[in-house]
Amino acid sequence: MLKLIAEDYIDPAKIEFVLPLYEELVEKTRQEPGCISYELCQDLKNPGHFVFIEAWKDYDALDAHVASEHFQRLVPQIDAYTVGEARFTHLEKRF
Amino acid sequence: MLKLIAEDYIDPAKIEFVLPLYEELVEKTRQEPGCISYELCQDLKNPGHFVFIEAWKDYDALDAHVASEHFQRLVPQIDAYTVGEARFTHLEKRF
Repeated sequence: MLKLIAEDYIDPAKIEFVLPLYEELVEKTRQEPGCISYELCQDLKNPGHFVFIEAWKDYDALDAHVASEHFQRLVPQIDAYTVGEARFTHLEKRF
Repeated sequence: MLKLIAEDYIDPAKIEFVLPLYEELVEKTRQEPGCISYELCQDLKNPGHFVFIEAWKDYDALDAHVASEHFQRLVPQIDAYTVGEARFTHLEKRF
């Protein structure tokens, strides 16, 4: 299993525009066969900071996610509202 | 529900010493009544970077965790092996 934390920094003034895009991305991603879990959280101290907490069967599942129609269509639209570099942390569960 | 991502930066040369402390912390924390989930992951690209992915019933549950005997005993021992500032991100699940 591969765990991934993906962090976006969205312009706080544009959050209302990005939420429906995120909602669709989460809904469609959860239907992917290789997706174990996929949650979108929002930083309570910094509303523009969005954090995906993800679990994938393996790297192939993550690659398929990135190649999916919904990812390819939605992520560029979401990125238009970002104000900082995304941060990706690939993790292995230890305990 | 409160989600929390807590990140430690451990001296890579000391990882073997910190793992048993982490293992005990995870085991005892999962028995706390307010703990919904508590996982420790390791960064695949930076072995000294450890990431707790946590879910708590509420802030009171998190406060009780911090006040617990095992937290008060183990965390100072773990901190002795850190080489950088811990990072805490308090989150709310959106989707």
